[in-house]
Amino acid sequence: MPVENYSLDLILFLRAPAKTPNQTIYTRAVQHQNQLTKPPGSLGRLEDLATQLASLQETDSPKIENILIRIFAADHGVVEEGVSAFPQAVTAEMIKNFSAGGAAITVLAKALNADFGVINLGTVSPLPELAKVIDKRIDAGTKNFCKSAAMTDEQLEAALLAGRNVVLESKAKTVPDLFIGGEMGIGNTTSASALACAILKQPISKLVGKGTGVDDSGIKRKINAVERALALHNSAVASPLTSLQALGGFEIVGLVGATLACAQEGIPVLVDGFISSVAALIAVEINPSIRPWLFFSHCSAEVGHAAVLKYLNANALLNLDMRLGEASGAAIAAPLLKMACDLHNNMATFDQAGVSH
Amino acid sequence: MPVENYSLDLILFLRAPAKTPNQTIYTRAVQHQNQLTKPPGSLGRLEDLATQLASLQETDSPKIENILIRIFAADHGVVEEGVSAFPQAVTAEMIKNFSAGGAAITVLAKALNADFGVINLGTVSPLPELAKVIDKRIDAGTKNFCKSAAMTDEQLEAALLAGRNVVLESKAKTVPDLFIGGEMGIGNTTSASALACAILKQPISKLVGKGTGVDDSGIKRKINAVERALALHNSAVASPLTSLQALGGFEIVGLVGATLACAQEGIPVLVDGFISSVAALIAVEINPSIRPWLFFSHCSAEVGHAAVLKYLNANALLNLDMRLGEASGAAIAAPLLKMACDLHNNMATFDQAGVSH
Repeated sequence: MPVENYSLDLILFLRAPAKTPNQTIYTRAVQHQNQLTKPPGSLGRLEDLATQLASLQETDSPKIENILIRIFAADHGVVEEGVSAFPQAVTAEMIKNFSAGGAAITVLAKALNADFGVINLGTVSPLPELAKVIDKRIDAGTKNFCKSAAMTDEQLEAALLAGRNVVLESKAKTVPDLFIGGEMGIGNTTSASALACAILKQPISKLVGKGTGVDDSGIKRKINAVERALALHNSAVASPLTSLQALGGFEIVGLVGATLACAQEGIPVLVDGFISSVAALIAVEINPSIRPWLFFSHCSAEVGHAAVLKYLNANALLNLDMRLGEASGAAIAAPLLKMACDLHNNMATFDQAGVSH
Repeated sequence: MPVENYSLDLILFLRAPAKTPNQTIYTRAVQHQNQLTKPPGSLGRLEDLATQLASLQETDSPKIENILIRIFAADHGVVEEGVSAFPQAVTAEMIKNFSAGGAAITVLAKALNADFGVINLGTVSPLPELAKVIDKRIDAGTKNFCKSAAMTDEQLEAALLAGRNVVLESKAKTVPDLFIGGEMGIGNTTSASALACAILKQPISKLVGKGTGVDDSGIKRKINAVERALALHNSAVASPLTSLQALGGFEIVGLVGATLACAQEGIPVLVDGFISSVAALIAVEINPSIRPWLFFSHCSAEVGHAAVLKYLNANALLNLDMRLGEASGAAIAAPLLKMACDLHNNMATFDQAGVSH
């Protein structure tokens, strides 16, 4: 990291180690699972979820009750390259839809009884005051990264710290059992694809997909935009942080900051789809100690997602051809974690039930 | 089907067509999905779940609120061939555990606020009266199908009608939005594997697995038992119904009856793991009209399950390495169906939310 460009506060934040999972509790949780009235291992990945959550939450009775969902939203300069199927106005329109409760994630957040909110990190135009939406606009969207860095040093720092502060402020009120981050920003699959290329060093065509639904010519424009951006920012992509500044979006940077903060504060993270996974990837590249805190909810239909998950050695829980983003896939997977905890806490042991084994 | 062996009541039941899904409502549901504030198709398989449930429940607002869970339990004569990792006593012991609420499915049923019950179709010994358990014992377990047919004509009929009656009696009180059937019976993966071999005509080694966790010599004993059974019942396995009589267990037959009845009565079925999928397979072979009523919850770790799902052209929702049975995989998947309905019913349309598209 080119330390000279960033504040000491930021550097200390980025380097702070994640909380260490409790190995003693993990071992005890595994032993407990083997005493429950079922063939050992027969709950499959639900057993892993419960034992990992026990070690992360440092309790013999892990739980998923207080779920914190935060959507980071911002606009992207790269949309002027014709990379999205939807007009840029949709970012702001969807923020209003989040506020009014009509979006997929708001329906799911209600079903999960989750603490839901949106952070506007940079729509093109200011928005009126809206319920559930916090205005933290950094700028009127990022710059077009085909022509210059997406954001300045100061903007990168502001977005990272905004992500961190969302977690710290929420934790000060109630410690969440689980954090789910989401994103909204027309054009942000192009940004995420460019970032994935910078880290994975794989062919652009394997990491650029349809996003919200562009046609073949739209995909060509996306590939072309990413090609030009990677050439322009050739030196920046040597580091995850400078890649993020050159190619990111404010909402992706906010997710990176929130993800790092969760791991440092001891809050498990359930990662959503392609864009959120790219944010998780960048966060892990910046600070590998956070990796144990990440659960990956689903593998989306977006073409680059499987490659990002593989690079992270992540085995997603669901594969339902979803490609909506805005934390919807993570919200759909949350009941799996909750039920894994229910089973861990509430099943009888062989001895308790008098079952032979 | 050798009609001379079975009662007219049974034949009429087995042949009665499933209720026809409502195509008009299905078309309207698909149109509705395309109006919701998301890129068309971006909720992936959740959209299919919602639109199919709409057509099956014949409503524009499908729902998964009243879930009916019934576990069929019985013992198996084939256990004397050394095919299970657990002693036969566990069948009865687990029924007591279901009654007391300590088993995986009872924990999950509580989390789902489901109507839960157990039907004892034939433990080796009678059980005392137990909460949530209905005594419908047909016999002291099936016969060892390596030596004779597992059950008589009359027993087959009794088990099929017991499965049907469970559905009819429940429906008379409250129409369930979803039925989940499960099974408990030490030795029943061997029975299910034999039935899968009879229908799929695939090599025995591809359809016989570890079950609750037998070692390699146990798998050899299972394969050997299935080989001898298929040779002995060579003529019976020409028909799904006579296969069921020769190789089934009372709880598997009960599941077949319940599955048929649900489709006839207009109740969607969420199928559990390997054994329940084999019961669904037999039900479809007996009466193909029921196929649209079946959702497949998960692909288990049991080796033959993927082949059975493929034969049924079924794409399971989850793949979490579960292999517990007792309806646990279906219960874990139920929130996906519920949330798919929530999204369908509660998301705003583009016009309602003023979102460009």
